[in-house]
Amino acid sequence: MQKTNPGNFFEDFRLGQEIRHPTPRTVTLGDVALYNGLFGSRFAVQSSDAFAKKIGYPRSPVDDLLVFHVVFGKTVPDISLNAVANLGYADCRFLKAVYPGDTLNAVSEVIGLKENSNRKTGIVYVRSRGFDQDGAAVLDYVRWVMVRKRDEAAPAPGEEMPELPKVVDVAKLGMACPPIDAAAYDTTLAGSPHRFGDYKVGEKIDHVDGVTVEEAEHMLATRLYQNTARVHFNQFSESKGRFGRRLIYGGHAISLARALSFNGLGNAFHVAAINGGRHVAPLFAGCTVFAWSEVLATAELPGRSDVGALRLRTIATKDQPCTGFPLKASDEYDPAVILDLDYWVLMPK
Amino acid sequence: MQKTNPGNFFEDFRLGQEIRHPTPRTVTLGDVALYNGLFGSRFAVQSSDAFAKKIGYPRSPVDDLLVFHVVFGKTVPDISLNAVANLGYADCRFLKAVYPGDTLNAVSEVIGLKENSNRKTGIVYVRSRGFDQDGAAVLDYVRWVMVRKRDEAAPAPGEEMPELPKVVDVAKLGMACPPIDAAAYDTTLAGSPHRFGDYKVGEKIDHVDGVTVEEAEHMLATRLYQNTARVHFNQFSESKGRFGRRLIYGGHAISLARALSFNGLGNAFHVAAINGGRHVAPLFAGCTVFAWSEVLATAELPGRSDVGALRLRTIATKDQPCTGFPLKASDEYDPAVILDLDYWVLMPK
Amino acid sequence: MQKTNPGNFFEDFRLGQEIRHPTPRTVTLGDVALYNGLFGSRFAVQSSDAFAKKIGYPRSPVDDLLVFHVVFGKTVPDISLNAVANLGYADCRFLKAVYPGDTLNAVSEVIGLKENSNRKTGIVYVRSRGFDQDGAAVLDYVRWVMVRKRDEAAPAPGEEMPELPKVVDVAKLGMACPPIDAAAYDTTLAGSPHRFGDYKVGEKIDHVDGVTVEEAEHMLATRLYQNTARVHFNQFSESKGRFGRRLIYGGHAISLARALSFNGLGNAFHVAAINGGRHVAPLFAGCTVFAWSEVLATAELPGRSDVGALRLRTIATKDQPCTGFPLKASDEYDPAVILDLDYWVLMPK
Repeated sequence: MQKTNPGNFFEDFRLGQEIRHPTPRTVTLGDVALYNGLFGSRFAVQSSDAFAKKIGYPRSPVDDLLVFHVVFGKTVPDISLNAVANLGYADCRFLKAVYPGDTLNAVSEVIGLKENSNRKTGIVYVRSRGFDQDGAAVLDYVRWVMVRKRDEAAPAPGEEMPELPKVVDVAKLGMACPPIDAAAYDTTLAGSPHRFGDYKVGEKIDHVDGVTVEEAEHMLATRLYQNTARVHFNQFSESKGRFGRRLIYGGHAISLARALSFNGLGNAFHVAAINGGRHVAPLFAGCTVFAWSEVLATAELPGRSDVGALRLRTIATKDQPCTGFPLKASDEYDPAVILDLDYWVLMPK
Repeated sequence: MQKTNPGNFFEDFRLGQEIRHPTPRTVTLGDVALYNGLFGSRFAVQSSDAFAKKIGYPRSPVDDLLVFHVVFGKTVPDISLNAVANLGYADCRFLKAVYPGDTLNAVSEVIGLKENSNRKTGIVYVRSRGFDQDGAAVLDYVRWVMVRKRDEAAPAPGEEMPELPKVVDVAKLGMACPPIDAAAYDTTLAGSPHRFGDYKVGEKIDHVDGVTVEEAEHMLATRLYQNTARVHFNQFSESKGRFGRRLIYGGHAISLARALSFNGLGNAFHVAAINGGRHVAPLFAGCTVFAWSEVLATAELPGRSDVGALRLRTIATKDQPCTGFPLKASDEYDPAVILDLDYWVLMPK
Repeated sequence: MQKTNPGNFFEDFRLGQEIRHPTPRTVTLGDVALYNGLFGSRFAVQSSDAFAKKIGYPRSPVDDLLVFHVVFGKTVPDISLNAVANLGYADCRFLKAVYPGDTLNAVSEVIGLKENSNRKTGIVYVRSRGFDQDGAAVLDYVRWVMVRKRDEAAPAPGEEMPELPKVVDVAKLGMACPPIDAAAYDTTLAGSPHRFGDYKVGEKIDHVDGVTVEEAEHMLATRLYQNTARVHFNQFSESKGRFGRRLIYGGHAISLARALSFNGLGNAFHVAAINGGRHVAPLFAGCTVFAWSEVLATAELPGRSDVGALRLRTIATKDQPCTGFPLKASDEYDPAVILDLDYWVLMPK
């Protein structure tokens, strides 16, 4: 029997199939430090135990996106080892704060399957859930990927497209942000005077700064998440591939954009949900990433007067500053755009 | 209202102005590990809890320079985002040991202002102080930077030059080093047989080793400190700039020189003060850094028989070994010199 | 008296000489995180406190090879600063689990000396032992290195070749793996269904994946271990040397191969011993490392029904996938081979 993991091919998936993923992972202060070194995040709640405590957290929670990446990483060996492309995310909710010392597991359910007309590949939709050591759900999201077939002649394993919300209903946002004392939230220390009420729908913010990515950086990050997708690590094989070089994990661009977004969104301390995300173009080492955001909506959270929610669309580009808010030319994305992310953040009122 | 931070320009500063800086930062064992991976420090007190406890610390303290960089990093968005050059440091004292888990904040006071004759820039002197979560001061230093004016026509915001000590008075050194049991200090374990009494004024030490810097390394370090100075991270814009490449944070050279200095100063376990420092020339990735030191003075600490102080001048070079103690040719610095640092270290007697 | 450490030359060693090495080192969760980021290890016992506890560990132990590298690093300034080549390892046993917070020390005994016929170098055999803060031995191994003489005319300091076991006797394996509850070991979570009984002598496993190494990565790792061997860090001097570039620490290849071996050996959660190892060829940044393994033997551990031992030979290559199990062509190693490692791992029954 083969000892190595060949990954699943399109015809291996079944609707309703539940997959318990390896590898359980205790997230530690060490992971947080390396994540900070890689992205330079400055959100005060995640940066300072003292700040977090003052507003009502027991201590600084782990960055939401680090939680996302760790859970996502677990799904790779089972879901996307034979993927051609990571097509999208939806209905991603952060349900419970994760603290250093918590151990994360992941389980996925196959919720959609659709063979492509070329019969060489198919699209697999999975709902993946992250759990902590007590079995409490911390994260829940859908992603869909295009996966190769092992055997073109194999029958399609089913066909069903899930219905996915375009936007996570604010009433369904999780409790990863505990009730906070918004009056105790010190905006000077946090680095921005702008609270929830200061942002208006339609407002666009150029996050100004740019950051260049190195090979060592994205590989350190992606390995930290135990993400095993081969295209990120193996220059020998990638040099013969489509791009001639290692492809950076899409989540790296998300974390870079989130860190850049601090400049303009300094009090958006919690990512509560990701409504949708698209990796518009690949990112490579040597490129410099910029970002801008638009406020798509503002929302009150049912039963909460401490925080409000902003629905943001954050666009990341490579090698192009975002002064002009680059997005699309007619129907096509501006060639500089690499990421189009739609998500909810919470801000103190 | 603009949501992003444009930073302060020269005319925005006022004498006596006090600035509370974002972002509070809990320094953890994770930060310490990454710092060690980046610099390879080997001072036993910071490396081993057991060693530290044996001589009287409760556990290993955080490396003094890591504390410096974290506090310094906080000051950047308010003080030097529009700086042309970081001109110097003075009167820097390490006041209290920082331990993993402590949260650092920073406050700066504007203590000097002087417009340059071209009216395009001015020099801002600030005294910056780092505090822990209990409000106790851990670090106090002065730096001065040349900052651009937003508007050349704007009147100068004042003119006053602070009086700064050329050397920190040993009587004013802080208590960041608790009383230690010098007899319990095991020089074999520490890696050097040489105690305070073995160093003589005028002695020069070539630290022998060299270390090459990579882009990923200095960016990891500088982001770890949440230092947001743009020149360190953005190759896209720097490629069009003065040097055509990213400029390495000056503090990186200080930490490299300090780590190299272990070879020859292995028992100089605590940086007690920085009398002055000058970044003589820029450092870039790909360069190899070397260092040498001269003992400028030795001093007894009032009321302490456990440790003595050495005043050191450490010179770091790029791409030039320090066998010949490169420094100046007539009045000019040797072109290989990048750092000229004058500081006090403590050594066990 | 010279303040810097010139290292020992061949004629400085004496048979039976015992060397207590600097620098004691507390291994922390931060070190573990950086190690994970560098190698992407996925063995569940080291990754998850919850998993480790469930089978009988108090918490996740520190990766065996991280322990090895830290202890090895300590020996470098005294043993191999003037080494021409690191020739081999033998009789390496992991004696006691190390947990984050433990402090490691190292002591070496010179057990063999042999001058080379050119009288310019000699071979030094040392038995090095790592101890924790309580003085308990955690690691014991022999290595031999070719060391330069300071003075060719100096008499050889003795001549004696130690007898070394070709294979560590399974009866002599340490207790670094406590008794575990093999039934509680969840192979789904661990990522491989294959237990001890599923591996047969002679079985060969291609670990499939490849990983490209960057300069920043190997330097981060090697500094984390406080390994001061100059060839790894100094491009200025290495550019003039034998290879024209920095040589990667041999242990880096071992850790890369170990991490790659997860794909095929996912339940080999503990390295119990290293029988022998040879760095067949140098590794440089930019190369992509692959690996394959052969099961040389299987063994029951005296008195233990929870785990069995596999004797593995793992071969690592650079820039050559291991589909064809590259090893030797006639008597010579395949030029792609960089590492030939013979070791015992434990697997749950």
